[in-house]
Amino acid sequence: MKVAYLGPHGTFSEEAAHRYFKDRQIDWHMCDSVPEVLEAVGDGLADWGIAPIENAIEGTINMTVDSLLVNDLYIAGEVILPVSLHLLGTPGTKEEDIREVWSIPPALAQCREYIRSLKVKTRHFDSTASAAAAIREAGRNDVAAVASAYAGDLFGLVKVRRNIEESYENQTRFVVVTNDKKAPADARKTMLQVIPSDEYTGVLSSILNVFSALNINLTWIESRPTKKKLGAYQFFLEAGFGVQNPLIEKAVAVLQTYGHEVNILGSFTATKLD
Amino acid sequence: MKVAYLGPHGTFSEEAAHRYFKDRQIDWHMCDSVPEVLEAVGDGLADWGIAPIENAIEGTINMTVDSLLVNDLYIAGEVILPVSLHLLGTPGTKEEDIREVWSIPPALAQCREYIRSLKVKTRHFDSTASAAAAIREAGRNDVAAVASAYAGDLFGLVKVRRNIEESYENQTRFVVVTNDKKAPADARKTMLQVIPSDEYTGVLSSILNVFSALNINLTWIESRPTKKKLGAYQFFLEAGFGVQNPLIEKAVAVLQTYGHEVNILGSFTATKLD
Repeated sequence: MKVAYLGPHGTFSEEAAHRYFKDRQIDWHMCDSVPEVLEAVGDGLADWGIAPIENAIEGTINMTVDSLLVNDLYIAGEVILPVSLHLLGTPGTKEEDIREVWSIPPALAQCREYIRSLKVKTRHFDSTASAAAAIREAGRNDVAAVASAYAGDLFGLVKVRRNIEESYENQTRFVVVTNDKKAPADARKTMLQVIPSDEYTGVLSSILNVFSALNINLTWIESRPTKKKLGAYQFFLEAGFGVQNPLIEKAVAVLQTYGHEVNILGSFTATKLD
Repeated sequence: MKVAYLGPHGTFSEEAAHRYFKDRQIDWHMCDSVPEVLEAVGDGLADWGIAPIENAIEGTINMTVDSLLVNDLYIAGEVILPVSLHLLGTPGTKEEDIREVWSIPPALAQCREYIRSLKVKTRHFDSTASAAAAIREAGRNDVAAVASAYAGDLFGLVKVRRNIEESYENQTRFVVVTNDKKAPADARKTMLQVIPSDEYTGVLSSILNVFSALNINLTWIESRPTKKKLGAYQFFLEAGFGVQNPLIEKAVAVLQTYGHEVNILGSFTATKLD
């Protein structure tokens, strides 16, 4: 089985992919960008793809949703990865000897107070993983990377200081996608795209009322401009039941009767990694 | 007047900032990351900041919203910049001589079909602007960058091929923020943060019904996990009236009576650049 994911080695995407597919024999297909991951699945180069959809540190959800639609893929799984940042150095590195910290700007920003307290310079990289790899390559004791424990293990670095990020609940959500539009039997969430029949005041609340009338909880919602028409919005909704649940069927039927376009983007169960 | 924005020279942020503040005497404060832009305003190092809030190519909205809240800033303006990507080379560069194309992965992905047709290698940079700067520095005729016309002009590059992106309506929205919590007199939109009193099925539709009952159009909505409580969501809403409109006051009063926490993040008029 071939799985596509976003590289380089040591990214949060790689960690999520390896842990999610851990007991299976996988042929890994590393990609340079999120659109390439989803295209690899769309083109049949990979059976599955894993891509970040809600992410505090790397990647963006917009690109994932856009590429999902372009490649006509199905979300069959969701992985939630807690994200913790550490100050990583080569073995023997002491906090007081560090003169420079390497990472991506958003990761450095999440640890700003701590890094300020070190009174060091910062240097920017393409990914937290490439910063960790560069520390390993440099083999110096006066530089350190801000990256994940996974990247640290991969590149033989040690934690000079643990959990240096300021935000208390950092996590990244990934979608696991495939070409086969079949929900797993235990699916408990459904992702829908709703394109309103027309733009009018209250169109979104009229859409949401359909779910509320059927007692369907919505666990995520996002409005996005449609590329079809200037100023028009579409909505992405995550409902708290699998697609096989008759309530979802009813909601879709009511929305379609109102004239809205509804597309099921996937149905799945969330896997929470610790 | 001092204005903070995201560098390096040639970014879409710089273009939006320069065009928005075009007739004023500005002391520019270039930053390395979105959080730094907003922090500069929060710390009083800059009077105004401009940061991307909905962006197809660079930056992410999550970081902007988070930093807005942390620094307790007010959104007093919005800038909408159409984004077009071009293949840029040093003068005299011919399409058929190009062997390598430089840019950031998402920008390359947006022009995938065209770049494929060139049968060239690609090389990754930190920003479209830094790719354009590198082409200028290399001074070669066999490499080209995917970047904006603004970056091309800045670095003396020419358009080898125009409008190579596949998506038809690419734009980036920026917020213009300041410390002074006062809406401009002509404000016609209001950005609100609503933190529900409790999590229950239909809480979002009950919130949206308040706006729909008052005939207030919502032009943008996003749900985000709150960092205060595990699994709890907050909502960001953009309403189609300025904060001085009595309808907005009424909506806020009703939501507060229901027990929800409501914060006005700003009130402004959108400026559409062409």
